[in-house]
Amino acid sequence: MKICFHVDENSRWQVALANVRNTFNYFKENKLEGEIVVIANAEAVVYLSKDHIAEAMCEELDHFISEGVAFFACRNALKGNMIEESRLVKGVEVVPAGIIALAEKQGEGFAYIRP
Amino acid sequence: MKICFHVDENSRWQVALANVRNTFNYFKENKLEGEIVVIANAEAVVYLSKDHIAEAMCEELDHFISEGVAFFACRNALKGNMIEESRLVKGVEVVPAGIIALAEKQGEGFAYIRP
Amino acid sequence: MKICFHVDENSRWQVALANVRNTFNYFKENKLEGEIVVIANAEAVVYLSKDHIAEAMCEELDHFISEGVAFFACRNALKGNMIEESRLVKGVEVVPAGIIALAEKQGEGFAYIRP
Repeated sequence: MKICFHVDENSRWQVALANVRNTFNYFKENKLEGEIVVIANAEAVVYLSKDHIAEAMCEELDHFISEGVAFFACRNALKGNMIEESRLVKGVEVVPAGIIALAEKQGEGFAYIRP
Repeated sequence: MKICFHVDENSRWQVALANVRNTFNYFKENKLEGEIVVIANAEAVVYLSKDHIAEAMCEELDHFISEGVAFFACRNALKGNMIEESRLVKGVEVVPAGIIALAEKQGEGFAYIRP
Repeated sequence: MKICFHVDENSRWQVALANVRNTFNYFKENKLEGEIVVIANAEAVVYLSKDHIAEAMCEELDHFISEGVAFFACRNALKGNMIEESRLVKGVEVVPAGIIALAEKQGEGFAYIRP
């Protein structure tokens, strides 16, 4: 089971991370092989920057990344929000265009979820 | 044609139910076999409780359920919002994890719509 | 690569059009054959009317339409918002039900994106 979350509003990060947490726990409890990807674009890339992320969210992000959840930030959105790629939380990857990445994931059989 | 609606914000219930209504009528008018599923998670499970749902919404929910529309509430979200399963509107079913249910539906060929 | 955007909140048009712009540019820069469709329902059809659209948005819409991006407005939503079809921006097409169109597009292999 492969799931791709789309986050493009800062106000949706809290729900999105709760979704990731529940999905992650469900995979673990049911001994399922699963893949979880989070793709952020528009203003939502701001909270992936070390300069703007809240401490609690950063700890959770670190934890998820160490457990294999992939976080991607859209380069167009980083430019539009003047976030340097070097300021992203460690482990967050950059894609040239978030929308294209979201479409590619769907093409690879990922379910799309928009919290 | 199989359609799965995802509701995770209380403010989106009104639009989501209008979507269900239009889809339901379209199937009826065009004599189409269709399947409609609504999966609620996060705060949106609150309005599926008898204690919080508005009367007009409850009547519409009863009607849709009697006509075969399936409504599911996420157990994680019910716990998080301290809603007892016994307090759900009659006919609303519970799934262990809303996100997993949404992914499964997409895997079964349901279109995903996020009102 | 085929991408279908779903817009059902007026407040999401700005992000949706930025998404279209980025997707369009990505296709062009990478010499990709791509198809972009935007389906508006609920209140979001209002801004597709000549009487309500902002000038800058209208210019961008004209540009995208001339470049092959398809914009569809839901007839149910037009009626609900008392928008005459004759008042739609030139080139915007009407579908009987936005949700059905969104489901059909997904059935045709379009990725679904909800900005």
